[in-house]
Amino acid sequence: MSLSLNQWTTRRWSLAEAVDGCVRHGLEAIGLWREKVAEQGLAESVRLVRAAGLRVSSLCRGGFLTAGGLPGEEGRTAFARALEDNRRAIDEAAELAAACLVLVVGGLPGVRPGEPLPATGFTRDLAGARARVAEALAELAPYAGERGVKLALEPLHPIYCPDRAVLSTLGQALELSLPYPEEQVGVVVDTFHVWWDPRLFEDVARAGGRIAAYQVCDYLHPLPEDVLLGRGMMGDGVIGFPPITRAVRDAGYAGDVEVEIFNADLWAADPDEVVATIKARYRDVVLP
Amino acid sequence: MSLSLNQWTTRRWSLAEAVDGCVRHGLEAIGLWREKVAEQGLAESVRLVRAAGLRVSSLCRGGFLTAGGLPGEEGRTAFARALEDNRRAIDEAAELAAACLVLVVGGLPGVRPGEPLPATGFTRDLAGARARVAEALAELAPYAGERGVKLALEPLHPIYCPDRAVLSTLGQALELSLPYPEEQVGVVVDTFHVWWDPRLFEDVARAGGRIAAYQVCDYLHPLPEDVLLGRGMMGDGVIGFPPITRAVRDAGYAGDVEVEIFNADLWAADPDEVVATIKARYRDVVLP
Repeated sequence: MSLSLNQWTTRRWSLAEAVDGCVRHGLEAIGLWREKVAEQGLAESVRLVRAAGLRVSSLCRGGFLTAGGLPGEEGRTAFARALEDNRRAIDEAAELAAACLVLVVGGLPGVRPGEPLPATGFTRDLAGARARVAEALAELAPYAGERGVKLALEPLHPIYCPDRAVLSTLGQALELSLPYPEEQVGVVVDTFHVWWDPRLFEDVARAGGRIAAYQVCDYLHPLPEDVLLGRGMMGDGVIGFPPITRAVRDAGYAGDVEVEIFNADLWAADPDEVVATIKARYRDVVLP
Repeated sequence: MSLSLNQWTTRRWSLAEAVDGCVRHGLEAIGLWREKVAEQGLAESVRLVRAAGLRVSSLCRGGFLTAGGLPGEEGRTAFARALEDNRRAIDEAAELAAACLVLVVGGLPGVRPGEPLPATGFTRDLAGARARVAEALAELAPYAGERGVKLALEPLHPIYCPDRAVLSTLGQALELSLPYPEEQVGVVVDTFHVWWDPRLFEDVARAGGRIAAYQVCDYLHPLPEDVLLGRGMMGDGVIGFPPITRAVRDAGYAGDVEVEIFNADLWAADPDEVVATIKARYRDVVLP
């Protein structure tokens, strides 16, 4: 298992700067974001990571597949648009030879990420939203398979269930993945999202070869007002990493370990210092 | 199933005022809090609820059993003190003929509810904290059984795992309860805490006669800065209640349905208006 920088951790850096940063700090892999790839241009991004000899440990992200749960024409249009965007994401992941495309599946239909509940035009049908994700996966998995891309279902902490992901546990992600070949659909283990789960160790073992990505960052306490930014540098929060890292390794995962931190203070800091701290904490706090 | 007012919803009211309020609004049951019972005096509290002909649907709360996970003498003292306080809570529940004593089991050892992480003196050993809860239960369940009190294990939303409850899912609570007779240890289904759980319906059915209390309130989105106050009036948040209420009823639960809302706006409002709204929303939003 080798350390990878998810580029959202150093989001002040462009893709080109993040690639340089990885090389400068001796990292062998990088996790990319579609927004950053688009800014750099897809072809140029491919060229940069290849020239640097970096593996692309993941492309973030596809998903947001639940809006189809809205009634009538609005739902049908939203579902078609989401599938189209995800097919583009799969194409990009193929070009970049990313180890996987991370899918954040979306929240309750009509609830927009980080925004207050609308007065009307959303649904509380959680079971229905989850069914939409399974339907979308049936469309996307073969498309990904034909292009050699692995879709990675990411369960998000239940705090994000209303607006970002109705996929809330590793076990649930695993169930969704089972109808498909391992090389088409896997799961993400992100410590922030799953550390609390009483079934975590059982489900990590059960996931085995389905684990497509292992992402680490700490869970801050108390959470900041914008809960999206409740992620912290490993060691700054409440997560005990070694047992989780050991379980992921023992399940057979031999890919890269991505550090993905959304945190206002880290985003304001010098990215080179952030990467240096990541390397130290990875060794001291994350490894078993 | 009949509506019960958990008195923390109208916390401006003393116990005597809350009992009067229930009678005035035609409710047959009330959920009590130990702080309020202590203010009124235990004997007087018993007299008031009996004279009013109210059932006590629950006493809130015992628990906070994890501090024993701290090392050495500090841990042993904290564990002994927690057990002693819980025995007192059981005695009070027996006096009040409460249907159950709700247990909020506590967070990571050394992390105090609602407070920032201390610099030292806390542990990230989540598995150990969970083991302490099981140990405490082995001490307390027989004591409760001898006094005819049912302990009700309350799984809390994973957002409270660091500081309030390492018991995070209904399934986990159920597993903990299984070694004991149903009349000694049950579980709480609180919509706020469990609405997101992909295994909810399966675990509610599995719980059956173990369901000791059904508490309802909504899950607000976005959550306020103090996440403890993210509970809302039914209909104001993201929870679809009817399928959950139906599942709890179909599992055989025939007790009271407690409305327990921690919410700064509701606490500031006229309690009589709050209770009137609760009755209307219960009928329109909660019942299947």
